[in-house]
Amino acid sequence: MFSMNDLILKKRNGGILTDEEIRFIVNGYTDGSIPDYQMSAFLMAVWFVGMNDEETAILTMAMAESGDMLDLSLIKGIDQDISKDNDVSEGLTRNETIKRIIDKHSTGGVGDKTTLIIGPILAALGVPVAKMSGRGLGHTGGTIDKLESIPGFSSDLTEEQFMEQVKTVGFADMCQTKNLAPADKKIYALRDVTGTVDNYSLIASSVMSKKLAAGADGIVLDVKCGSGAFMKDIDSARKLAEIMVNIGKKAGRDVTAVISDMNEPLGRFVGNALEVKEAVEVLRGGGEERLRELSVRLAAEMLMLADKSRGDNSISHDGKEQVSDSGSKTNNAVDTLLNTEHDDILDKYISRVEKAIADGSALTKFKEFVEAQGGDSSFIDGNGSLPQAEIMLPVRSKASGKLVGCDTEKIGLAALKLGGGREQLTDEIDPAVGIEICKHLGDDIKSDELLAVIYANDNARASEAERLIHEAYKIADTDDAEHDVILQVIR
Amino acid sequence: MFSMNDLILKKRNGGILTDEEIRFIVNGYTDGSIPDYQMSAFLMAVWFVGMNDEETAILTMAMAESGDMLDLSLIKGIDQDISKDNDVSEGLTRNETIKRIIDKHSTGGVGDKTTLIIGPILAALGVPVAKMSGRGLGHTGGTIDKLESIPGFSSDLTEEQFMEQVKTVGFADMCQTKNLAPADKKIYALRDVTGTVDNYSLIASSVMSKKLAAGADGIVLDVKCGSGAFMKDIDSARKLAEIMVNIGKKAGRDVTAVISDMNEPLGRFVGNALEVKEAVEVLRGGGEERLRELSVRLAAEMLMLADKSRGDNSISHDGKEQVSDSGSKTNNAVDTLLNTEHDDILDKYISRVEKAIADGSALTKFKEFVEAQGGDSSFIDGNGSLPQAEIMLPVRSKASGKLVGCDTEKIGLAALKLGGGREQLTDEIDPAVGIEICKHLGDDIKSDELLAVIYANDNARASEAERLIHEAYKIADTDDAEHDVILQVIR
Repeated sequence: MFSMNDLILKKRNGGILTDEEIRFIVNGYTDGSIPDYQMSAFLMAVWFVGMNDEETAILTMAMAESGDMLDLSLIKGIDQDISKDNDVSEGLTRNETIKRIIDKHSTGGVGDKTTLIIGPILAALGVPVAKMSGRGLGHTGGTIDKLESIPGFSSDLTEEQFMEQVKTVGFADMCQTKNLAPADKKIYALRDVTGTVDNYSLIASSVMSKKLAAGADGIVLDVKCGSGAFMKDIDSARKLAEIMVNIGKKAGRDVTAVISDMNEPLGRFVGNALEVKEAVEVLRGGGEERLRELSVRLAAEMLMLADKSRGDNSISHDGKEQVSDSGSKTNNAVDTLLNTEHDDILDKYISRVEKAIADGSALTKFKEFVEAQGGDSSFIDGNGSLPQAEIMLPVRSKASGKLVGCDTEKIGLAALKLGGGREQLTDEIDPAVGIEICKHLGDDIKSDELLAVIYANDNARASEAERLIHEAYKIADTDDAEHDVILQVIR
Repeated sequence: MFSMNDLILKKRNGGILTDEEIRFIVNGYTDGSIPDYQMSAFLMAVWFVGMNDEETAILTMAMAESGDMLDLSLIKGIDQDISKDNDVSEGLTRNETIKRIIDKHSTGGVGDKTTLIIGPILAALGVPVAKMSGRGLGHTGGTIDKLESIPGFSSDLTEEQFMEQVKTVGFADMCQTKNLAPADKKIYALRDVTGTVDNYSLIASSVMSKKLAAGADGIVLDVKCGSGAFMKDIDSARKLAEIMVNIGKKAGRDVTAVISDMNEPLGRFVGNALEVKEAVEVLRGGGEERLRELSVRLAAEMLMLADKSRGDNSISHDGKEQVSDSGSKTNNAVDTLLNTEHDDILDKYISRVEKAIADGSALTKFKEFVEAQGGDSSFIDGNGSLPQAEIMLPVRSKASGKLVGCDTEKIGLAALKLGGGREQLTDEIDPAVGIEICKHLGDDIKSDELLAVIYANDNARASEAERLIHEAYKIADTDDAEHDVILQVIR
């Protein structure tokens, strides 16, 4: 139909590709009719010339549609066609009127265990979270690897078990077995070896194609920004976030992007079992302040997207129904917030999230969730225990002053070297090891004061981690920088 | 040693590659350790970022050294080491003191038969021409295909036959059997399908790598410019010429680039046997003016390069030895010309070339050459004949005025459609077919006057060619354009 060489030339010379042309490229590359060497030349041309919003959205949708597209209507518990008609479901209770499934995605950081906290909160609030995850490479495992540090916990569910658990418990996390966005998989592998990773359109389409294929109606993106993230500064994080939100719009999904700070690890722990323990602390109402703030905000944003267009105006849970000017039930106060940022409305969502923590319902959901997937939940009440490391090595500051900088990637590398992550896909993860972060940016620290604690099962590895942690932190006399965890929200 | 992904990134981000890095890439791609998909991404990065003169020269040399490097010292008839010592050879006659082999290369045009004219002229003047050619795709065949329209002529020589013929006759043209610049062959095939053909450094290195591997001491490049050439305007032709001359300098070879006009076919005929016939006309002292002018100039430039540094100051063949200020025999008047363009010196070379035509010695050499390669030379004296087409279809002008424009590629396409060239490598060429061009740019033409004559063996093909020829030419009331055949010479 098209000549791939002509399409490479068109993009190279600054042209805008059509829907048909982009789909020809994505489908041809996925089915093998376009060879790697033409695709890599094309990707390099895209790196130089860029893609506009329209092209990026088309690319994303073509990649999403290259494999299975999940149908989550089963989870919603009602027929998809009927669910589109608000009138039919109005008389049902919340558990019977689930109309919107909300997904959450992090662009990746060090110490990020927010999914473990958010899933139970939303489930407690009646918003189902159906999480499909893959095992990956990196400084610590993915959410599934963290959960599997709980004795007995398994993420090898059948699709039926998964759907059933989402319906009954409200939260499930299974290993991805479907063929989601195979085009992305193939293109990403090629980009990785052809110098074409760092392009906004290509990154955004890679993230969003998988999310679109995963079938959620709304997506909250946690776009990490800083020394431990792919995006090092707020401008590039904002640009990426805007592109992804825009893709969502064009694909008919609601997307909210929360840009969050990753200039130091998130929370107090890095390491699989350690992070599960910390998630429980937050669900119990405690936990480190920044981790708690971000988790609550992400959960509130997801809740808001779940309510959007629900028609029952559930945000006005104080009883006063809010009706927008147009009178349309789908054009409610949440839609207004999504465009104008109205603190009162956001505050109400935050209050609901905090209430689910305060009244213990979120922690109860977490217990239910762990047990539903075969895990021993007794550690939650302090009767059982998660894997523990044999060695605890304190890392003490060599100087006095303020903690002003952290090379967060080095902290991640330290956790990896301890055995907490995978360097190769076949590596076994040691669930017990990790790092406890005792000081945060802006904190005062004295010479010989505790900076971190290393949890290890090997002395040599512990020493290497200690060296990396010392290298990572910078101490100075003064620190004028802000250390907000939430930098910006883009809708 | 290096990571190809890192080298792609280095070039992509504007870096200058080192000698070691470029050789790693060329050698790795040639031996297969660097895959196509990385090479094509690299080539696209080069397309956007470019290569500087130094990088381009290194790339060219690495490509030249990727296969066989011809050793022409056998042709020179004396041991290479001894030949470098001027004193040893000073007492010898010219035929015994051949020290410099000069090659000639055209970037490709329509109706270009200059090699058939220049080879015999230089041989007659004692400068050996050792031509290795390949069969190619295009509107007419290559020089070998043209020669093979002579009954009995063969270019399948052994290397020994070839060397012997160059020594005895002074001119030989054989099918390339050596593995010259395999890196270029592989890279060119990749560029052709990945949108990376039109880059100066890549074009220049492709041309020059083969020429460097072919072993000549000096190279005259005929850089075609205009509607029938790859370079459409003088600026781009000049840029390409300068890059190639510079590569030659860095590789220790003398290179002269003649930029010549290709806004209409060169000479009066396009087609294999027709072009052989036309070459003989020029060698006989006649022929179309522009073809004759360019052939003489190219021959003179080659002669000048052959004399350069010869030490016997043979340019002063009037007997007065010219000695440069430095007194160095290698720093003679030719060197001066090569830097300053001195008409007197050039005129003397042109006179020698014209004398070789006028006294019949060049034509005699052509006859010797044809016979040495098994061809029936009787057509030269009008006793035999070359293949002749059955159909002669006159193409008459549909308008009156001045001939102001020619889409030369269309004329080439017309010749191809007649069967004069190959669309695929396995196509058989019809040596008899072709086009006679009766009018040149700037000529007055009347309605119904003869514009061209088609020589064909098939009526349908003749009609298609006629249509293309009508489409190609543009007739207008006035024509202010210059139609010089030689546009610029770069040394």
